[in-house]
Amino acid sequence: MSEPTLFPEGGFLRLKIKLAYDGTNFSGWAKQPDRRTVQEEFEKAFATIVRQQCDSIVAGRTDAGVHATAQIIHIDVPESTDLSDLAYRLNQLLDTDLRVLELEVAPEGFHARFSALRRHYKYQIVDANKVINPLDRYDRASWYRPLDLARLNEASALLLGEHDFAAFCKFREGATTVRTLETFKWERKEDGLLVAQVVADAFCYSMVRNLVGSAVCVAEGRFEPSWIAEMLANRERISESMVFPAEGLTLVQVDYPSHAELITRAALTISRRDEDPENMSN
Amino acid sequence: MSEPTLFPEGGFLRLKIKLAYDGTNFSGWAKQPDRRTVQEEFEKAFATIVRQQCDSIVAGRTDAGVHATAQIIHIDVPESTDLSDLAYRLNQLLDTDLRVLELEVAPEGFHARFSALRRHYKYQIVDANKVINPLDRYDRASWYRPLDLARLNEASALLLGEHDFAAFCKFREGATTVRTLETFKWERKEDGLLVAQVVADAFCYSMVRNLVGSAVCVAEGRFEPSWIAEMLANRERISESMVFPAEGLTLVQVDYPSHAELITRAALTISRRDEDPENMSN
Repeated sequence: MSEPTLFPEGGFLRLKIKLAYDGTNFSGWAKQPDRRTVQEEFEKAFATIVRQQCDSIVAGRTDAGVHATAQIIHIDVPESTDLSDLAYRLNQLLDTDLRVLELEVAPEGFHARFSALRRHYKYQIVDANKVINPLDRYDRASWYRPLDLARLNEASALLLGEHDFAAFCKFREGATTVRTLETFKWERKEDGLLVAQVVADAFCYSMVRNLVGSAVCVAEGRFEPSWIAEMLANRERISESMVFPAEGLTLVQVDYPSHAELITRAALTISRRDEDPENMSN
Repeated sequence: MSEPTLFPEGGFLRLKIKLAYDGTNFSGWAKQPDRRTVQEEFEKAFATIVRQQCDSIVAGRTDAGVHATAQIIHIDVPESTDLSDLAYRLNQLLDTDLRVLELEVAPEGFHARFSALRRHYKYQIVDANKVINPLDRYDRASWYRPLDLARLNEASALLLGEHDFAAFCKFREGATTVRTLETFKWERKEDGLLVAQVVADAFCYSMVRNLVGSAVCVAEGRFEPSWIAEMLANRERISESMVFPAEGLTLVQVDYPSHAELITRAALTISRRDEDPENMSN
């Protein structure tokens, strides 16, 4: 796969596409040999319709089992491509666990990954061993202990701001772990479901599931809230056993600046990523 | 399977159990040879735990692909049965598409089927070819034409009351088709989803899906509302092609009278069903 360019090549048009998927039966976004991945399935359908292999660039490279209700990608196509009903035709070809929600010609300077300002995830937990309604079982994680909402929020708030999140990221050679966590807060829905809203400029590999696991440790009383601040400060990797499962995690939104600022934002992102060859991922 | 009795036999205790299931991978409630059914899966798990084969009686015998968020059954067990944590132990054994929500000793005179006053179903449609979010794809039906909410409700209201619903039931030898439709109304949710609430004392085989299909015919303008009243009056079976799919249908509630009236209700139901050897089903 060729390295994508900041702008489409001459004679090409950039499409901005919003996708939704149930991650249950995907080995994540990124193409891998002999695995069913979202990228592979999407690009295969796309190639069938436009009759040309096109590489897609994704805003949030979700890990195996992670869902998306509003993933954003871009893809460059020859200007001659017939765009009429393209979203509809793609959905006819794709399996029902992957859908094209929107498809449009991208504004000048748009880059799905580099222009993005921030990514929004949600994480859903059914605590206290409560029974999960079978029709809701795909996008929530189960936890046996009851969780205290105030402590969840107290622990989570300690992580807000720009920090080196090395304690909460799976190690990847050369990838930066400095991120700005803008939102990390929990609410309990009427039916008892716990929902975390997690927003950052970008996330390191497995970061949301690490953050959730750490907040849960505090909420159930295994550690005091100060523990989470210490882990952050010491950049001491939390135990793998605390990491929460992929099934509870959903990418729900990607923010971009106004059209006028798209190129500036992309240039800024690129200038900051000299030590970050990998895309963020969860 | 022996015919169940109105009361548990001597030395037996009646349990009232609330179940939820995702009907997608079940061939309906009722046991059938070589098919995965809810009844079979439940009774198998139950027999493993109580070490005795027990037959269950169901309130709403759902058809293949139909879901339930609150199905009610009863099952008679030897008084010596260890009831501690029984719901939890069943859920440990059952697949995640079938869950025990509640389990209790039934009040005197309780019969899951005969004591029931009414059954509540919902039917969910995504109309106008709108894309279905993959995580929501299991319990809603897709329809290509846009549907007018006012006309859906106008057509549906014409069916309320006690009628012979032969036009809207799959024929079954000897089964009555006289039912009292108490509620049949539609609302459009914020995200555009159409939800029908359908309540009757009992339903004939495939009845909700027939009612939904007929209301849709009117809503999309294929027929005038008067057509639905004529079909009802003439007891003329509607075209099989109008019947809506099982996946949009969910049993959401079963109502029972107060404890004091349970036996009277059961006796009344039995006296009325002389020509109805089959349980209602959808």
